[in-house]
Amino acid sequence: MRDTFGDALSFTIFGESHGVAIGGVLHGVAPGVRIDEQFISFQMEKRRAKSAASTKRKEPDKVMFLSGVKDGVATGSAIAFEILNTNTKSEHYKNTQNLLRPGHADYTAYAKYSGYQDARGGGHFSGRITAPIVAAGSIFFDLLSKNNIKIGTQLLSCANIKDKPFSTNFYDIDKEIDYLNAIDEEFATLDSEKGKQMFNAAVDAANDGDSVGGILQTCILGLPAGLGEPFFTSIESVISKAMFSIPAIKGIEFGLGFDFANIKGSTANDEFYIDEKQNKILTKTNNNGGINGGISNGMPIVFRTVIKPTPSIFKIQNTVNYSTKQNATLQIQGRHDPCIAHRARVVQDSFTALAIADLLNMSYGTAWQNKKINNML
Amino acid sequence: MRDTFGDALSFTIFGESHGVAIGGVLHGVAPGVRIDEQFISFQMEKRRAKSAASTKRKEPDKVMFLSGVKDGVATGSAIAFEILNTNTKSEHYKNTQNLLRPGHADYTAYAKYSGYQDARGGGHFSGRITAPIVAAGSIFFDLLSKNNIKIGTQLLSCANIKDKPFSTNFYDIDKEIDYLNAIDEEFATLDSEKGKQMFNAAVDAANDGDSVGGILQTCILGLPAGLGEPFFTSIESVISKAMFSIPAIKGIEFGLGFDFANIKGSTANDEFYIDEKQNKILTKTNNNGGINGGISNGMPIVFRTVIKPTPSIFKIQNTVNYSTKQNATLQIQGRHDPCIAHRARVVQDSFTALAIADLLNMSYGTAWQNKKINNML
Amino acid sequence: MRDTFGDALSFTIFGESHGVAIGGVLHGVAPGVRIDEQFISFQMEKRRAKSAASTKRKEPDKVMFLSGVKDGVATGSAIAFEILNTNTKSEHYKNTQNLLRPGHADYTAYAKYSGYQDARGGGHFSGRITAPIVAAGSIFFDLLSKNNIKIGTQLLSCANIKDKPFSTNFYDIDKEIDYLNAIDEEFATLDSEKGKQMFNAAVDAANDGDSVGGILQTCILGLPAGLGEPFFTSIESVISKAMFSIPAIKGIEFGLGFDFANIKGSTANDEFYIDEKQNKILTKTNNNGGINGGISNGMPIVFRTVIKPTPSIFKIQNTVNYSTKQNATLQIQGRHDPCIAHRARVVQDSFTALAIADLLNMSYGTAWQNKKINNML
Amino acid sequence: MRDTFGDALSFTIFGESHGVAIGGVLHGVAPGVRIDEQFISFQMEKRRAKSAASTKRKEPDKVMFLSGVKDGVATGSAIAFEILNTNTKSEHYKNTQNLLRPGHADYTAYAKYSGYQDARGGGHFSGRITAPIVAAGSIFFDLLSKNNIKIGTQLLSCANIKDKPFSTNFYDIDKEIDYLNAIDEEFATLDSEKGKQMFNAAVDAANDGDSVGGILQTCILGLPAGLGEPFFTSIESVISKAMFSIPAIKGIEFGLGFDFANIKGSTANDEFYIDEKQNKILTKTNNNGGINGGISNGMPIVFRTVIKPTPSIFKIQNTVNYSTKQNATLQIQGRHDPCIAHRARVVQDSFTALAIADLLNMSYGTAWQNKKINNML
Repeated sequence: MRDTFGDALSFTIFGESHGVAIGGVLHGVAPGVRIDEQFISFQMEKRRAKSAASTKRKEPDKVMFLSGVKDGVATGSAIAFEILNTNTKSEHYKNTQNLLRPGHADYTAYAKYSGYQDARGGGHFSGRITAPIVAAGSIFFDLLSKNNIKIGTQLLSCANIKDKPFSTNFYDIDKEIDYLNAIDEEFATLDSEKGKQMFNAAVDAANDGDSVGGILQTCILGLPAGLGEPFFTSIESVISKAMFSIPAIKGIEFGLGFDFANIKGSTANDEFYIDEKQNKILTKTNNNGGINGGISNGMPIVFRTVIKPTPSIFKIQNTVNYSTKQNATLQIQGRHDPCIAHRARVVQDSFTALAIADLLNMSYGTAWQNKKINNML
Repeated sequence: MRDTFGDALSFTIFGESHGVAIGGVLHGVAPGVRIDEQFISFQMEKRRAKSAASTKRKEPDKVMFLSGVKDGVATGSAIAFEILNTNTKSEHYKNTQNLLRPGHADYTAYAKYSGYQDARGGGHFSGRITAPIVAAGSIFFDLLSKNNIKIGTQLLSCANIKDKPFSTNFYDIDKEIDYLNAIDEEFATLDSEKGKQMFNAAVDAANDGDSVGGILQTCILGLPAGLGEPFFTSIESVISKAMFSIPAIKGIEFGLGFDFANIKGSTANDEFYIDEKQNKILTKTNNNGGINGGISNGMPIVFRTVIKPTPSIFKIQNTVNYSTKQNATLQIQGRHDPCIAHRARVVQDSFTALAIADLLNMSYGTAWQNKKINNML
Repeated sequence: MRDTFGDALSFTIFGESHGVAIGGVLHGVAPGVRIDEQFISFQMEKRRAKSAASTKRKEPDKVMFLSGVKDGVATGSAIAFEILNTNTKSEHYKNTQNLLRPGHADYTAYAKYSGYQDARGGGHFSGRITAPIVAAGSIFFDLLSKNNIKIGTQLLSCANIKDKPFSTNFYDIDKEIDYLNAIDEEFATLDSEKGKQMFNAAVDAANDGDSVGGILQTCILGLPAGLGEPFFTSIESVISKAMFSIPAIKGIEFGLGFDFANIKGSTANDEFYIDEKQNKILTKTNNNGGINGGISNGMPIVFRTVIKPTPSIFKIQNTVNYSTKQNATLQIQGRHDPCIAHRARVVQDSFTALAIADLLNMSYGTAWQNKKINNML
Repeated sequence: MRDTFGDALSFTIFGESHGVAIGGVLHGVAPGVRIDEQFISFQMEKRRAKSAASTKRKEPDKVMFLSGVKDGVATGSAIAFEILNTNTKSEHYKNTQNLLRPGHADYTAYAKYSGYQDARGGGHFSGRITAPIVAAGSIFFDLLSKNNIKIGTQLLSCANIKDKPFSTNFYDIDKEIDYLNAIDEEFATLDSEKGKQMFNAAVDAANDGDSVGGILQTCILGLPAGLGEPFFTSIESVISKAMFSIPAIKGIEFGLGFDFANIKGSTANDEFYIDEKQNKILTKTNNNGGINGGISNGMPIVFRTVIKPTPSIFKIQNTVNYSTKQNATLQIQGRHDPCIAHRARVVQDSFTALAIADLLNMSYGTAWQNKKINNML
């Protein structure tokens, strides 16, 4: 019902795929924080569909600020923005509007909204609604980056093709994140050759009327130890709640994740040591993905999500006509993504930034944002 | 900071492993709901340590209600309860109190609480704090069950030994859940032989001063279509936030989960059909684990979590002395679980019940609980 | 920081007086609820400045829906809307921008936002931000009215002129509320002669470069007994939190209010009796304003708020120049209201409707809104 | 439903007058904050019934901490505590249990809880439930005081007898607050003679089987400018929400309050000036009670609440038998307060401290509490 994310910040989204506009309202940005519209556009551009591996619906996705920003700086009041829906072709949905698309939210929307939902283009369930998440998240992504907290996401796997994972060495991770953030590659991999293979596999699937999924791996570097709260507001709880808001994500794991099931404690435990160079307590391994007891331990936070293959495929599928309550067959029309994992990268980056900013606000209010307070982090 | 779970119900926990008491306060139980203390005790008993595969700290874990229950029935006011800590041996922690236990929250607690945390027995980070979750969750577990919404959790894998997974047939799942809920087996598996093997493996690990992890699979049967909210309050978001509150859980996946990465949309999509017997729209497969777009679709909800091997092992480990900020070695003493996955089963069941009740309260207020309103579900 | 109202609904506002637009996002409207744009316009029109007793800034205040409404009906997703700022004259503020206007939020905004606030026209502190409250509240005002829960607000007092208060007879109150809601009088009084006197007093004050305040009395008729929650979510808590969001409100009292201080319990207590006509338990008097222990008792809810005289007066005032940190004198320019109490009427009505809807959602989810469930109220 | 107060802290209460115990759970106290149990007892003692002007039910009201406190210092985890109900005489309620006590919450509790409420002694609606508010609030009251933010409450009026109000001079207010906080007078007035007269008037009312009400005035000294949030989280919104949680409070006003209705803007406005002594921007008058636009302006925060006469009087009253649904007469038995205003003083003080701490946490996280950060306030 609520569509508001955050505990010590607050981010509310709105919009439907073929409505007037989508957008968001963000509270919790400290007055004086620079809002770099050029950077936001750069991030929005990453999410945009561009090639044959993405939908043919091309939207400019221009973020228009309605409030909370003056002369490129946050005023401290709510930052509201909208993104117009300009390139809608609802006619594609007319013919098949009562045919429940498998893997989509058509049926659950009917069950929930009694048929009053705006079903065109997936309505509020459309992946398009992640655009406001990118817009808002980019503000914090940028701010965190300036505070030396860097977030980077790689397309670790797509259509069974696997990228080289993040390094374990701090310095290398740093460079890898910088590399990933600088490039505007649709298939953002550390090994660019793998990205090309993934792209080809996605286009192949498209040509076959089919779709593919993938795994995204995110690394957060530079987070101080002691962030997060025990139990219900653990870093894992906050990040997972965020990630499962991204349509198509069906799993998340931190550190070793599901591989923990197959090893023993003596292998799983990350032993502590004094790192002389950084003058910090660190761990030799990072099986726990930078989190103990729900709280950051100063090591890189590492997690992976799985993105299911896009449900909009062009093959004929069996389904039900909701109106007649009879079995039927469906051939989806319209413009769809044969893969969404690569576009989800920037959504994952952005939402991670929002989640981390929320945790920082919880501990420090918004004071950390403009460093009024020395050595806060 | 807050330790309160829920949106349309509210559950607050408190307590530290070696403090006076642990407990909780639960709002959102409708007046008139029966509080079956015998059932709660039965569930608490499942969580208790009993054998060589669990810690030697044996607590009676008697739930004492302080308010909100009169003559076995909820009054409608907050249900507060406490569980006394009776069997604490803090001396085990004295000798090693500044030695950061690998895999534990010792260091993160220091970083967060500046040394003021109650570190004895893990303090507020102790797995013991899950006892109040079982107590509160059992109230809804019981109530849901009476409303034909059944929750069951199996120990799907432990120490590399795998149980037979839940069936895909509604009727079989129903019986399997009943079976799992009736037994008070420490290692609750559908194939009891596998449970015994797991037990032996855990005891072997214990004898070796080591520990093992596992995977829990939960099935929710009977949930109506249309529950959950899009985006930030998706069923996946609500359940994952809850599950990651359980210490040692490091991953969660719904339906096919991470296997989605390796298949195509044409395989992944669950085709709809009219089920004549139940007179319902169902899906032929259940790859999406009963959830589309964050909303329940009437199929069984299926998810898996991974429980890491208990970090309290008795082998000598390298670590840091927090007080001297020097490298050190540690041999943990005290009474610890060589495996926690089997005891986590009932925590997962209970927390799932709380999460589902929260989603139901969101849609229906508390009115669904006493069925004042016909056909609400 | 958050600018979000509601517990079981959620209403977020945004905007600054001279920014691009103001608006809001409303969650918690059930799918299928009719959104009567004509009625909303009628209510917005009541809030608009029209005469010499109000500011000369005339805004069309057209509510443009961005999402959540399709074919005049709520889809169940967030209802987002914006109201453009078209008639801004920021030059009035330029000359005096560092001179702190007495009674205004200029200084507190500086203290809070370190000078980054959008100070033009009062920015986010402007009374203009109440327009979205009217827009959103009108949806529920309309819906409640159709459920026979009627809300009406009279200008009980203004510039020392007093209107005839609401009757104590249910039937008469009903008619009085209908009368107040039907008229689009700026000074909405039950005795229209008094309204004219108030208008003249306000214009006189304006001509003198001064301003006047007033008291608004609200009556809610038809609320069932049993609404509200004890303690922190008492009806008084929820309504007062809402009312003090309206700029210029500095006091609120329920039932007898401050007069309770001077009478004895034997006079103050409202004796219960069986009302044969309505077949209900009612009270003979209504000193408690329809609320006992924070919960509605079936009698009309009655409360009064006080609106301070508008701080924007044209007389020369002593103040401080924030930039030079020196004493200074100020003569305010621009277009301002010599009285705001009369325009606040519809804000109070609308916000009351939002608050009551929140309490209803708390008890019944959104199910009460489309009466899917019989006899819910 | 929720009984949890706070946004950036969280305070949950539980308990029923004749249940096992009442208590609370408080999150948001920074690790390392000293918990002065002696001071808490001193404050609890102020709330206790002691003389003929209060109920004959005498409870020791010993606060027992269950968690979150170790060696007299906050651990950073939830502070849970309980206060046992030892002196309950439920038999007084048996005879009259179906007779709705006028002015009480008996009927509304029936309407809300369908008869399942614990009605003994008023159950969860009892004034006794304010004891946990005093316990929790005292922690912050003490802490704020050590940060030079002082809160004091006087019994401004009782039974038509009026105390000398707080001075307008900072230095005098300071001394007055110190005086009020040091004394353990039941009727805490600045003019002690007036307090005696009030006491006598309350005893007279008691002897007559009747009760009296009063007005409490609170002053907060030392709050920095810039605290509070616009609109829904204005200082007035937060404080009023809190105060209306205190049973019997039926009105609140800030600064001039309802007197604003009768004056003009030129009189109402508080002119700013540079105070040379304090090197601060202050206002010459304080009609706005230290708040502009919902935000503190550095002047003393001043507000008044009205406490209605206790509804438990011993005179025969007309009412309804809820069980038979017939008119009836009632003569209340049991032990009751002929006045509650004087005992509510410390509740108001304590809850004000909680509310202010919440606002401080919103701006600064919990960091302000242990002054890790210089010059935060």
